[in-house]
Amino acid sequence: MKSGPGSPPEKRKQIYRGRVVTLNLETTKLPNGVTIELEVIRHQGAAAAVPLTGDGNVLLIRQYRHAAGGYIYELPAGKIDPGEEPLACAAREVEEETGRRASSITPMLSFYTTPGFTDEVIHLFLATGLAPGTQNLERDEVLEVVEMPLEQAIHRIADGTIRDAKTIIGLQAAYLARGSRQP
Amino acid sequence: MKSGPGSPPEKRKQIYRGRVVTLNLETTKLPNGVTIELEVIRHQGAAAAVPLTGDGNVLLIRQYRHAAGGYIYELPAGKIDPGEEPLACAAREVEEETGRRASSITPMLSFYTTPGFTDEVIHLFLATGLAPGTQNLERDEVLEVVEMPLEQAIHRIADGTIRDAKTIIGLQAAYLARGSRQP
Repeated sequence: MKSGPGSPPEKRKQIYRGRVVTLNLETTKLPNGVTIELEVIRHQGAAAAVPLTGDGNVLLIRQYRHAAGGYIYELPAGKIDPGEEPLACAAREVEEETGRRASSITPMLSFYTTPGFTDEVIHLFLATGLAPGTQNLERDEVLEVVEMPLEQAIHRIADGTIRDAKTIIGLQAAYLARGSRQP
Repeated sequence: MKSGPGSPPEKRKQIYRGRVVTLNLETTKLPNGVTIELEVIRHQGAAAAVPLTGDGNVLLIRQYRHAAGGYIYELPAGKIDPGEEPLACAAREVEEETGRRASSITPMLSFYTTPGFTDEVIHLFLATGLAPGTQNLERDEVLEVVEMPLEQAIHRIADGTIRDAKTIIGLQAAYLARGSRQP
Protein backbone atom coordinates (compact mmCIF):
# COMPACT_ATOMS: atom_id res chain seq x y z
CA MET A 1 0.00 0.00 0.00
CA LYS A 2 1.68 3.18 -1.16
CA SER A 3 0.61 6.77 -1.32
CA GLY A 4 0.38 7.53 -4.99
CA PRO A 5 -1.90 7.85 -7.92
CA GLY A 6 -4.38 5.07 -6.95
CA SER A 7 -6.96 4.40 -9.66
CA PRO A 8 -6.37 6.70 -12.61
CA PRO A 9 -8.80 9.61 -12.68
CA GLU A 10 -10.48 10.45 -15.96
CA LYS A 11 -9.35 14.04 -15.60
CA ARG A 12 -6.92 15.66 -13.18
CA LYS A 13 -6.43 19.39 -12.72
CA GLN A 14 -3.56 20.42 -10.47
CA ILE A 15 -4.53 23.39 -8.30
CA TYR A 16 -1.35 23.60 -6.24
CA ARG A 17 1.88 21.72 -5.83
CA GLY A 18 3.69 22.44 -2.57
CA ARG A 19 6.45 21.12 -0.40
CA VAL A 20 4.16 18.73 1.52
CA VAL A 21 0.87 18.47 -0.35
CA THR A 22 -0.39 18.56 -3.92
CA LEU A 23 -4.04 19.57 -4.36
CA ASN A 24 -5.83 18.23 -7.42
CA LEU A 25 -9.37 18.35 -8.69
CA GLU A 26 -9.88 14.83 -10.02
CA THR A 27 -12.81 13.63 -12.07
CA THR A 28 -13.57 9.96 -11.67
CA LYS A 29 -16.34 7.50 -12.51
CA LEU A 30 -17.59 5.64 -9.43
CA PRO A 31 -18.56 1.94 -9.57
CA ASN A 32 -22.24 3.01 -9.55
CA GLY A 33 -21.72 4.89 -12.83
CA VAL A 34 -21.83 8.37 -11.29
CA THR A 35 -19.06 10.71 -12.42
CA ILE A 36 -17.86 13.15 -9.78
CA GLU A 37 -15.16 15.73 -9.25
CA LEU A 38 -13.19 15.34 -6.02
CA GLU A 39 -10.71 17.51 -4.15
CA VAL A 40 -7.74 15.18 -3.57
CA ILE A 41 -4.61 15.90 -1.56
CA ARG A 42 -1.77 13.79 -2.94
CA HIS A 43 0.95 13.11 -0.38
CA GLN A 44 4.21 11.17 -0.55
CA GLY A 45 3.43 9.12 2.57
CA ALA A 46 5.02 8.99 5.98
CA ALA A 47 6.45 6.58 8.52
CA ALA A 48 6.11 6.51 12.30
CA ALA A 49 7.38 4.29 15.09
CA VAL A 50 6.41 3.26 18.61
CA PRO A 51 9.75 3.39 20.49
CA LEU A 52 9.48 0.93 23.39
CA THR A 53 12.15 0.64 26.06
CA GLY A 54 13.07 -2.60 27.79
CA ASP A 55 11.18 -1.31 30.85
CA GLY A 56 7.91 -1.12 28.93
CA ASN A 57 8.07 2.65 28.56
CA VAL A 58 7.22 4.48 25.37
CA LEU A 59 9.04 7.55 24.04
CA LEU A 60 6.69 10.24 22.81
CA ILE A 61 7.46 13.67 21.49
CA ARG A 62 5.57 16.74 22.59
CA GLN A 63 5.61 18.79 19.43
CA TYR A 64 4.35 22.21 18.40
CA ARG A 65 1.86 21.87 15.57
CA HIS A 66 0.50 25.02 14.01
CA ALA A 67 -2.52 23.21 12.51
CA ALA A 68 -3.43 21.86 15.96
CA GLY A 69 -3.02 25.29 17.54
CA GLY A 70 -0.34 24.24 20.05
CA TYR A 71 1.64 21.33 21.42
CA ILE A 72 0.44 17.77 20.94
CA TYR A 73 1.89 14.37 21.83
CA GLU A 74 3.04 12.27 18.90
CA LEU A 75 5.09 9.27 17.96
CA PRO A 76 8.30 10.12 16.13
CA ALA A 77 7.32 10.32 12.47
CA GLY A 78 8.06 12.07 9.24
CA LYS A 79 7.57 12.20 5.52
CA ILE A 80 9.23 9.54 3.42
CA ASP A 81 12.04 11.00 1.32
CA PRO A 82 12.01 10.20 -2.42
CA GLY A 83 13.31 6.65 -2.89
CA GLU A 84 13.46 5.98 0.86
CA GLU A 85 12.05 2.76 2.31
CA PRO A 86 9.35 3.31 4.99
CA LEU A 87 11.36 1.24 7.51
CA ALA A 88 14.49 3.33 6.95
CA CYS A 89 12.41 6.48 7.31
CA ALA A 90 10.95 5.29 10.62
CA ALA A 91 14.41 4.39 11.96
CA ARG A 92 15.77 7.77 10.87
CA GLU A 93 12.90 9.69 12.48
CA VAL A 94 13.24 7.81 15.78
CA GLU A 95 16.90 8.83 16.06
CA GLU A 96 16.49 12.38 14.72
CA GLU A 97 13.56 13.19 16.98
CA THR A 98 14.22 11.20 20.17
CA GLY A 99 18.03 10.94 20.07
CA ARG A 100 17.81 7.17 20.55
CA ARG A 101 18.81 4.59 17.98
CA ALA A 102 16.72 1.42 17.61
CA SER A 103 18.47 -1.88 17.00
CA SER A 104 15.18 -3.48 15.90
CA ILE A 105 12.44 -1.97 13.72
CA THR A 106 9.52 -4.24 12.83
CA PRO A 107 6.38 -3.42 10.79
CA MET A 108 3.10 -3.06 12.70
CA LEU A 109 0.43 -1.56 10.39
CA SER A 110 -0.06 0.75 7.44
CA PHE A 111 -3.14 2.95 7.14
CA TYR A 112 -4.80 5.81 5.31
CA THR A 113 -4.90 8.85 7.57
CA THR A 114 -8.12 10.31 6.16
CA PRO A 115 -9.09 8.74 2.84
CA GLY A 116 -12.05 11.03 2.18
CA PHE A 117 -9.66 13.63 0.78
CA THR A 118 -6.08 12.34 0.78
CA ASP A 119 -4.06 9.32 -0.33
CA GLU A 120 -1.59 9.80 2.54
CA VAL A 121 -0.49 6.47 4.02
CA ILE A 122 1.41 6.16 7.29
CA HIS A 123 3.57 3.09 7.78
CA LEU A 124 3.87 2.25 11.45
CA PHE A 125 6.72 0.30 13.07
CA LEU A 126 7.73 -0.97 16.49
CA ALA A 127 11.17 0.30 17.52
CA THR A 128 13.01 -1.62 20.27
CA GLY A 129 16.56 -2.12 21.45
CA LEU A 130 16.95 1.62 22.04
CA ALA A 131 20.47 2.94 22.62
CA PRO A 132 21.85 6.45 22.78
CA GLY A 133 21.99 8.12 19.35
CA THR A 134 22.07 11.68 18.03
CA GLN A 135 19.05 13.95 18.09
CA ASN A 136 18.96 16.11 14.97
CA LEU A 137 15.99 18.45 14.69
CA GLU A 138 15.01 20.54 11.70
CA ARG A 139 14.70 24.26 12.33
CA ASP A 140 10.90 23.99 12.12
CA GLU A 141 10.71 21.12 14.65
CA VAL A 142 9.96 22.33 18.17
CA LEU A 143 9.64 19.35 20.48
CA GLU A 144 10.67 17.63 23.68
CA VAL A 145 10.93 13.90 24.36
CA VAL A 146 8.58 12.46 27.00
CA GLU A 147 9.01 8.92 28.36
CA MET A 148 6.13 7.21 30.13
CA PRO A 149 4.85 3.70 30.83
CA LEU A 150 2.79 2.34 27.93
CA GLU A 151 -0.14 1.81 30.26
CA GLN A 152 -0.03 5.48 31.29
CA ALA A 153 -0.04 6.50 27.62
CA ILE A 154 -3.18 4.41 27.11
CA HIS A 155 -4.83 6.37 29.94
CA ARG A 156 -3.65 9.62 28.31
CA ILE A 157 -5.62 8.62 25.20
CA ALA A 158 -8.77 8.06 27.24
CA ASP A 159 -8.43 11.38 29.09
CA GLY A 160 -7.93 13.33 25.85
CA THR A 161 -4.27 14.30 26.39
CA ILE A 162 -3.04 12.22 23.44
CA ARG A 163 -5.11 13.15 20.41
CA ASP A 164 -3.08 12.39 17.31
CA ALA A 165 -4.44 9.55 15.18
CA LYS A 166 -1.18 7.72 14.30
CA THR A 167 -0.09 7.95 17.93
CA ILE A 168 -3.36 6.52 19.25
CA ILE A 169 -3.17 3.67 16.73
CA GLY A 170 0.44 2.85 17.57
CA LEU A 171 -0.03 2.93 21.33
CA GLN A 172 -3.23 0.86 21.23
CA ALA A 173 -1.66 -1.68 18.86
CA ALA A 174 1.44 -2.02 21.07
CA TYR A 175 -0.75 -2.39 24.16
CA LEU A 176 -2.94 -5.05 22.53
CA ALA A 177 0.17 -6.93 21.32
CA ARG A 178 1.67 -6.85 24.80
CA GLY A 179 -1.60 -8.17 26.22
CA SER A 180 -1.49 -11.11 23.85
CA ARG A 181 2.11 -11.88 24.90
CA GLN A 182 1.25 -11.54 28.61
CA PRO A 183 -2.11 -13.32 28.97
CA MET B 1 -11.24 20.41 20.41
CA LYS B 2 -12.68 21.76 17.18
CA SER B 3 -11.40 21.96 13.67
CA GLY B 4 -10.94 25.62 13.05
CA PRO B 5 -8.51 28.48 13.01
CA GLY B 6 -6.21 27.24 15.83
CA SER B 7 -3.52 29.76 16.74
CA PRO B 8 -3.81 32.83 14.52
CA PRO B 9 -1.19 32.86 11.77
CA GLU B 10 0.70 36.06 11.13
CA LYS B 11 -0.24 35.88 7.47
CA ARG B 12 -2.69 33.66 5.65
CA LYS B 13 -2.99 33.33 1.89
CA GLN B 14 -5.92 31.28 0.64
CA ILE B 15 -4.90 29.15 -2.34
CA TYR B 16 -8.17 27.29 -2.82
CA ARG B 17 -11.51 27.01 -1.13
CA GLY B 18 -13.45 23.89 -2.07
CA ARG B 19 -16.42 21.85 -0.99
CA VAL B 20 -14.38 19.72 1.46
CA VAL B 21 -11.01 21.39 1.98
CA THR B 22 -9.55 24.88 2.07
CA LEU B 23 -5.84 25.14 1.29
CA ASN B 24 -3.94 28.05 2.82
CA LEU B 25 -0.33 29.13 2.94
CA GLU B 26 0.04 30.30 6.53
CA THR B 27 3.02 32.13 7.97
CA THR B 28 3.53 31.59 11.67
CA LYS B 29 6.19 32.20 14.29
CA LEU B 30 7.15 29.00 16.12
CA PRO B 31 7.90 28.97 19.87
CA ASN B 32 11.64 28.77 19.02
CA GLY B 33 11.41 32.12 17.22
CA VAL B 34 11.64 30.68 13.71
CA THR B 35 9.08 32.05 11.24
CA ILE B 36 7.89 29.55 8.66
CA GLU B 37 5.30 29.25 5.92
CA LEU B 38 3.14 26.14 6.08
CA GLU B 39 0.70 24.47 3.72
CA VAL B 40 -2.43 23.99 5.84
CA ILE B 41 -5.63 22.19 4.88
CA ARG B 42 -8.50 23.67 6.87
CA HIS B 43 -11.41 21.25 7.33
CA GLN B 44 -14.76 21.56 9.08
CA GLY B 45 -14.27 18.34 11.07
CA ALA B 46 -16.08 15.02 10.99
CA ALA B 47 -17.78 12.49 13.23
CA ALA B 48 -17.67 8.70 13.18
CA ALA B 49 -19.20 5.92 15.23
CA VAL B 50 -18.49 2.32 16.20
CA PRO B 51 -21.91 0.64 15.82
CA LEU B 52 -21.94 -2.35 18.19
CA THR B 53 -24.78 -4.86 18.23
CA GLY B 54 -25.99 -6.64 21.36
CA ASP B 55 -24.20 -9.77 20.09
CA GLY B 56 -20.82 -8.02 20.14
CA ASN B 57 -20.73 -7.53 16.38
CA VAL B 58 -19.60 -4.33 14.71
CA LEU B 59 -21.16 -2.82 11.60
CA LEU B 60 -18.61 -1.63 9.08
CA ILE B 61 -19.09 -0.19 5.66
CA ARG B 62 -17.10 -1.28 2.66
CA GLN B 63 -16.85 1.93 0.72
CA TYR B 64 -15.34 2.99 -2.59
CA ARG B 65 -12.69 5.67 -2.02
CA HIS B 66 -11.08 7.25 -5.03
CA ALA B 67 -8.09 8.52 -3.00
CA ALA B 68 -7.45 4.99 -1.72
CA GLY B 69 -7.75 3.52 -5.22
CA GLY B 70 -10.61 1.15 -4.40
CA TYR B 71 -12.85 -0.22 -1.66
CA ILE B 72 -11.84 0.09 1.98
CA TYR B 73 -13.51 -0.81 5.25
CA GLU B 74 -14.62 2.11 7.39
CA LEU B 75 -16.79 3.08 10.29
CA PRO B 76 -19.84 5.11 9.34
CA ALA B 77 -18.65 8.72 9.31
CA GLY B 78 -19.11 12.04 7.64
CA LYS B 79 -18.40 15.73 7.65
CA ILE B 80 -20.10 17.83 10.29
CA ASP B 81 -22.70 20.14 8.76
CA PRO B 82 -22.48 23.84 9.69
CA GLY B 83 -23.97 24.28 13.17
CA GLU B 84 -24.36 20.53 13.70
CA GLU B 85 -23.20 18.89 16.94
CA PRO B 86 -20.66 16.08 16.45
CA LEU B 87 -22.92 13.62 18.32
CA ALA B 88 -25.88 14.43 16.08
CA CYS B 89 -23.64 14.04 13.04
CA ALA B 90 -22.45 10.62 14.20
CA ALA B 91 -26.02 9.45 14.85
CA ARG B 92 -27.12 10.73 11.44
CA GLU B 93 -24.24 9.01 9.64
CA VAL B 94 -24.87 5.68 11.38
CA GLU B 95 -28.46 5.64 10.15
CA GLU B 96 -27.78 7.07 6.67
CA GLU B 97 -24.94 4.67 5.95
CA THR B 98 -25.91 1.45 7.78
CA GLY B 99 -29.70 1.75 7.84
CA ARG B 100 -29.72 1.16 11.61
CA ARG B 101 -30.74 3.71 14.21
CA ALA B 102 -28.80 3.85 17.50
CA SER B 103 -30.72 4.45 20.73
CA SER B 104 -27.46 5.33 22.53
CA ILE B 105 -24.52 7.38 21.26
CA THR B 106 -21.69 8.05 23.71
CA PRO B 107 -18.40 9.93 23.15
CA MET B 108 -15.21 7.85 22.88
CA LEU B 109 -12.34 10.04 21.63
CA SER B 110 -11.55 13.02 19.45
CA PHE B 111 -8.35 13.21 17.44
CA TYR B 112 -6.41 15.02 14.73
CA THR B 113 -6.28 12.85 11.63
CA THR B 114 -2.89 14.12 10.39
CA PRO B 115 -1.83 17.33 12.14
CA GLY B 116 1.29 17.88 10.04
CA PHE B 117 -0.86 19.49 7.35
CA THR B 118 -4.51 19.67 8.43
CA ASP B 119 -6.64 20.80 11.38
CA GLU B 120 -9.23 18.09 10.67
CA VAL B 121 -10.60 16.58 13.87
CA ILE B 122 -12.72 13.42 13.97
CA HIS B 123 -15.06 12.96 16.91
CA LEU B 124 -15.60 9.28 17.60
CA PHE B 125 -18.64 7.77 19.32
CA LEU B 126 -19.92 4.38 20.41
CA ALA B 127 -23.34 3.59 18.94
CA THR B 128 -25.43 0.91 20.64
CA GLY B 129 -29.07 -0.08 20.90
CA LEU B 130 -29.27 -0.54 17.13
CA ALA B 131 -32.75 -0.87 15.61
CA PRO B 132 -33.94 -0.85 12.00
CA GLY B 133 -33.79 2.64 10.45
CA THR B 134 -33.60 4.06 6.95
CA GLN B 135 -30.45 3.91 4.86
CA ASN B 136 -30.05 7.10 2.82
CA LEU B 137 -26.95 7.26 0.64
CA GLU B 138 -25.65 10.26 -1.28
CA ARG B 139 -25.16 9.73 -5.01
CA ASP B 140 -21.39 9.69 -4.50
CA GLU B 141 -21.51 7.07 -1.73
CA VAL B 142 -20.89 3.54 -3.02
CA LEU B 143 -20.89 1.14 -0.10
CA GLU B 144 -22.19 -2.04 1.45
CA VAL B 145 -22.70 -2.84 5.13
CA VAL B 146 -20.60 -5.66 6.60
CA GLU B 147 -21.30 -7.10 10.06
CA MET B 148 -18.62 -9.07 11.89
CA PRO B 149 -17.58 -9.96 15.44
CA LEU B 150 -15.47 -7.21 17.02
CA GLU B 151 -12.70 -9.74 17.62
CA GLN B 152 -12.65 -10.62 13.93
CA ALA B 153 -12.38 -6.93 13.03
CA ILE B 154 -9.33 -6.68 15.31
CA HIS B 155 -7.75 -9.54 13.35
CA ARG B 156 -8.64 -7.74 10.09
CA ILE B 157 -6.55 -4.79 11.30
CA ALA B 158 -3.57 -7.02 11.98
CA ASP B 159 -3.81 -8.75 8.58
CA GLY B 160 -4.02 -5.42 6.71
CA THR B 161 -7.63 -5.72 5.51
CA ILE B 162 -8.81 -2.77 7.62
CA ARG B 163 -6.51 0.18 6.90
CA ASP B 164 -8.44 3.36 7.66
CA ALA B 165 -7.11 5.31 10.66
CA LYS B 166 -10.42 6.31 12.32
CA THR B 167 -11.71 2.76 11.89
CA ILE B 168 -8.61 1.21 13.45
CA ILE B 169 -8.80 3.65 16.37
CA GLY B 170 -12.50 2.99 16.99
CA LEU B 171 -12.20 -0.79 16.81
CA GLN B 172 -9.11 -0.90 19.06
CA ALA B 173 -10.73 1.44 21.60
CA ALA B 174 -13.97 -0.57 21.66
CA TYR B 175 -12.01 -3.79 22.05
CA LEU B 176 -9.88 -2.39 24.90
CA ALA B 177 -13.00 -1.04 26.63
CA ARG B 178 -14.68 -4.43 26.34
CA GLY B 179 -11.61 -6.10 27.81
CA SER B 180 -11.74 -3.79 30.81
CA ARG B 181 -15.41 -4.64 31.33
CA GLN B 182 -14.76 -8.39 30.97
CA PRO B 183 -11.57 -8.99 32.94
